[in-house]
Amino acid sequence: MIIGDMYQKREAGRKKVLEAIKLHGGTTLLSTGISGDDARMALAAVQAGAKLIEPNHPATALARGHKGVTNMHDAENVRHEITLLQMAEVISGVRNVVGPDIYITAGVPGTFAEVVPTPLIDEDMALLSRSGADGLHTHKSTIEDLKAVVDLGHKNGLLIDAYIASPSDRHLFGIPADKPADVAETAKKMQDIGVDFVGLMTGMSYEGAKAGEIAPPVKERLEAMLKAVTVPTIAEGGINADNFKAFIGTGVNIIVVGTAIDDMAKEAVRKAVKTFLNQ
Amino acid sequence: MIIGDMYQKREAGRKKVLEAIKLHGGTTLLSTGISGDDARMALAAVQAGAKLIEPNHPATALARGHKGVTNMHDAENVRHEITLLQMAEVISGVRNVVGPDIYITAGVPGTFAEVVPTPLIDEDMALLSRSGADGLHTHKSTIEDLKAVVDLGHKNGLLIDAYIASPSDRHLFGIPADKPADVAETAKKMQDIGVDFVGLMTGMSYEGAKAGEIAPPVKERLEAMLKAVTVPTIAEGGINADNFKAFIGTGVNIIVVGTAIDDMAKEAVRKAVKTFLNQ
Repeated sequence: MIIGDMYQKREAGRKKVLEAIKLHGGTTLLSTGISGDDARMALAAVQAGAKLIEPNHPATALARGHKGVTNMHDAENVRHEITLLQMAEVISGVRNVVGPDIYITAGVPGTFAEVVPTPLIDEDMALLSRSGADGLHTHKSTIEDLKAVVDLGHKNGLLIDAYIASPSDRHLFGIPADKPADVAETAKKMQDIGVDFVGLMTGMSYEGAKAGEIAPPVKERLEAMLKAVTVPTIAEGGINADNFKAFIGTGVNIIVVGTAIDDMAKEAVRKAVKTFLNQ
Repeated sequence: MIIGDMYQKREAGRKKVLEAIKLHGGTTLLSTGISGDDARMALAAVQAGAKLIEPNHPATALARGHKGVTNMHDAENVRHEITLLQMAEVISGVRNVVGPDIYITAGVPGTFAEVVPTPLIDEDMALLSRSGADGLHTHKSTIEDLKAVVDLGHKNGLLIDAYIASPSDRHLFGIPADKPADVAETAKKMQDIGVDFVGLMTGMSYEGAKAGEIAPPVKERLEAMLKAVTVPTIAEGGINADNFKAFIGTGVNIIVVGTAIDDMAKEAVRKAVKTFLNQ
């Protein structure tokens, strides 16, 4: 087994993330949605300063109009039908245009809690790693499943970002923990099994927040996670232009934004089309 | 050979185009670039009123970061490496989300003047037609090559839009004709061999116009085409928010816009990323 080379690869990836967090004053962006899977938009995101990019299989299902899904909630139900080869193609295309210095973490069939059996094997991990991924974006729902993915990923030079699920989310996006004490315990366990970046699902996935604030229970969960671990931390779910500043204030190191970016790109296309239809 | 069914399919496609032209006061939009190949953005274009959508293989090369290309000029050089199966997937994904009433014309490897041998066969046309295409977006460079595509397409229920190339374009995007008299003669020949929609390349592809006007030589070529044929007409190449009104004024029935839409979507993503990086 090749251990030293894969350690080097992981540390190179970790350095990219740590430098991005530093560069952006303690909180950086993991840019996803269309900016994660479309090479044109990934490059635009990088041109604007994004250092972390996340292609994932549900967003790719949307991009490809797979089974006609038009929103992320529906995409989550068919995401496992996107193939690993399709995701490898997406990753290598994004890598081709953004260059070597950008951190790419990929969600692929099997790294989420899938609704049909979707095994991940060593060869899959090697393919993703060789396609240009630095890491895996994972949403496994038990610590045992997560450990299996951590071990497979690490063995192939891939870092792991993993998430604590919120019971408020419609989908099971990680290991469930509601009360702050449970969040802290889960975060510690995740760090202990080797998760490189520990994240919290806000419970607002694809919905966003009503006001420009984080609801107190979300903030308490976030603070519990931040105190529990020493690895870089992530917040994901419904972060948009109205509420992102409240997350930056918490000290979380990475905010994940996808749907809000998609919505702005869609609005630009709608505006363009109306212009050319002279309306 | 099935003739009657394929005639019905073609006439259904033609009706979509004629109704769009009527609905938009004589000049409608063929929306392409990211709005042609990404299902999310195709749906956004349709929501804003677009009735005609064009996925094509060079734009798909950009979307997939194929060989690292980041602009359409470079994409034209590798477009033939995108596979017909990839284009069929793109077409069916767009069709899945936009529904049956939108006209989809597709550029695929072999319908343009390709730099390596790229044969088109009957089974390819059948696949595209079954994937949801109404027509083929073609840029063949001789009337004989174009006729071969027209016959294959028609046989499989696909309408054909084809173009008169401009010597000012960096790429050979059709049958070359510079002087207005040559444009008129070429346009007539195209109509005679069965081209369903006759288009003119402005010669400004991926460059746009300097001012909000059409240069007099372009206008003279356009007028020559408009007078020469009775089928619906198209203008393509560098049409953007600065110059599109000048085209609408000419009486051309369809304007093709891709790069200008891409640019607006990219700008929206850049703006979004800057927001979330708090910059």
